[in-house]
Amino acid sequence: MSGLRFELETPVPLVDLDILDRNLARMAEYAAEHGLGLRPHVKTHKAPRVAREQARLGAVGLSCATPREAEVMASCHHDLLVAHPPVGLKAERLMRLPREVDLMVALDSAESIEMLVAAARRHDRSVRVLVELDVGAHRVGVPTAEQAVALARLVKARPPLVYAGVTFYPGHIRQRVEEQPRHIDRLRRDLTATLDTLRGAGLAADIVSGGSTPTAWQTHQIEGLTEIRPGTYVYNDRYTVAIGSCAREECALTVLGTVVSTAVPGQVVIDAGSKALGREPRVEEGQGFGELLDRPEVTVKAMNEEHGILDLSRTAWRPAVGDQVRILPNHACIVTHLNDVVCGLRGAEVVERYEVTARGR
Amino acid sequence: MSGLRFELETPVPLVDLDILDRNLARMAEYAAEHGLGLRPHVKTHKAPRVAREQARLGAVGLSCATPREAEVMASCHHDLLVAHPPVGLKAERLMRLPREVDLMVALDSAESIEMLVAAARRHDRSVRVLVELDVGAHRVGVPTAEQAVALARLVKARPPLVYAGVTFYPGHIRQRVEEQPRHIDRLRRDLTATLDTLRGAGLAADIVSGGSTPTAWQTHQIEGLTEIRPGTYVYNDRYTVAIGSCAREECALTVLGTVVSTAVPGQVVIDAGSKALGREPRVEEGQGFGELLDRPEVTVKAMNEEHGILDLSRTAWRPAVGDQVRILPNHACIVTHLNDVVCGLRGAEVVERYEVTARGR
Repeated sequence: MSGLRFELETPVPLVDLDILDRNLARMAEYAAEHGLGLRPHVKTHKAPRVAREQARLGAVGLSCATPREAEVMASCHHDLLVAHPPVGLKAERLMRLPREVDLMVALDSAESIEMLVAAARRHDRSVRVLVELDVGAHRVGVPTAEQAVALARLVKARPPLVYAGVTFYPGHIRQRVEEQPRHIDRLRRDLTATLDTLRGAGLAADIVSGGSTPTAWQTHQIEGLTEIRPGTYVYNDRYTVAIGSCAREECALTVLGTVVSTAVPGQVVIDAGSKALGREPRVEEGQGFGELLDRPEVTVKAMNEEHGILDLSRTAWRPAVGDQVRILPNHACIVTHLNDVVCGLRGAEVVERYEVTARGR
Repeated sequence: MSGLRFELETPVPLVDLDILDRNLARMAEYAAEHGLGLRPHVKTHKAPRVAREQARLGAVGLSCATPREAEVMASCHHDLLVAHPPVGLKAERLMRLPREVDLMVALDSAESIEMLVAAARRHDRSVRVLVELDVGAHRVGVPTAEQAVALARLVKARPPLVYAGVTFYPGHIRQRVEEQPRHIDRLRRDLTATLDTLRGAGLAADIVSGGSTPTAWQTHQIEGLTEIRPGTYVYNDRYTVAIGSCAREECALTVLGTVVSTAVPGQVVIDAGSKALGREPRVEEGQGFGELLDRPEVTVKAMNEEHGILDLSRTAWRPAVGDQVRILPNHACIVTHLNDVVCGLRGAEVVERYEVTARGR
């Protein structure tokens, strides 16, 4: 670690492109093997550089959370899902996406259907709609099959909206991978019942879109699923390692920081703080906001905006002012959102820089 | 609240310009009244719009944390303090600031002095140096007067560096205002001793720069102090209210969000999540990540990246999809860093938009 030296101003996110390539390929293979469409969520990278690779590897489409993400990703894939209810001015803004974009949105209320249909009619634009189901995450989505039927029926009655199917996010399944099967089993039963009810009402779902990175490798067990939407898998992070959804060697994103102070005994201060790493919790308390890539026993125990404090209590290593460190963050998606540019590595060489073009609004 | 309606896409930060004006004036008056120089930290706003006002109101200079902040603020004030050790490529980058900038940096190590002097000599540029003291925050700064003397001496021996004095950040004083006096009292005694030691060594500090927003209104009690560096006071936030450093009516910054889902019973979901509000803790646990400006009993109890979940357990209010809400965030500085543009209000009218120009790297 003490030999580490990049000619880069810090803090700056680094992406190991070899690992990124492997992560992209592995998920594409998993989806293909199980006959699932892969519609990666771009929130993790927000970068056309990565989205184009996902498209090249056969993604059926891309998932976006914001109008900005959709606008940027329109140049990478023509099939875009906006997986966030398009309420207020967002619906109008989405209608101004290039005409070649085949837009699909997820929603869970009559109000958002009416806003969307008004915008779609003003722009004479057909929009596919997925009815969002709450399968246990209790965030968005209708909790009952009857409500799903009612919304699907409403969509069908509101051209130019097109009822395309259902979507869900199993965000409640965040346990370690080996503890997931009983949750997945329950999800499968509930989903099957809802899909049956829809079918019985003449509202069979062509698209059943679900999944997350924590559950990614289990999603083939969910009958009826037609496509998956993992995001974090491209970079992975300390959280995905902690739950066993990836190996530590599959983490592509780190933040390069520099030791700026060793003045206070028993600790060192780096220039990566909450404005570079994000104040994201790990699965377990007390494990800090990140750990060194090559020294996992050294964690970022505290942060201010531009300061990270390394905990040296479990190491004999004593860095000097000016030494660089690579921090594996708790949550990759936040690091992306905090930074405008990512440096791509092959081995220890910075071979490219790419923009986080879709960050911001 | 239900009548609230801005023609804005959300989430977006709003700044009440009348409150901002009053906050700026009040701190300028406090500093003038006590004969203290005011060198506001720009990290909170990162906006030339606000920095120019601070300059107009008599700020002796501006404090910056990053080279980017210094570059942007060079157009607002000629006297800039970079209050973060300029280690690595940062020292070199600072030397490329416009020549009219009278640069000052804070540091706490011989290594950073040597890096800075090398850069300063390459660019034939005089740089004032403040030796950073640790007065109890245990982040950066030398803990003893003897170490301060040694660093000050080293600076004096390294032209074109100029020894200008000392600096400290009382980040450990984060208690409620009424519990601060004994901490301030200790700080005053320690600081006086250090300043005496420096003076005895022929290293009297012309500039003694310290303070924070939590301690802002107490800093006149610290003898020897020549200037203060509050940042958050321009906007204030839920934290500064909680410790009694400002009144709730003095909070200028809110985040405008829109209700996007009411599907899950007992809660509503807004489109402002961790990528708009930041996952910043409040003083006390369990109080969420923000509260509604007009309904403080409604808090943001949970977040995902683009979702905030409002806790409706202490209110009979039931908003509908499409309703807008204004959220008072826990920590204003993070909100600024997460957003590129701020909307300025007079009353309920958006009268301007200004850029957070100095965010990013």
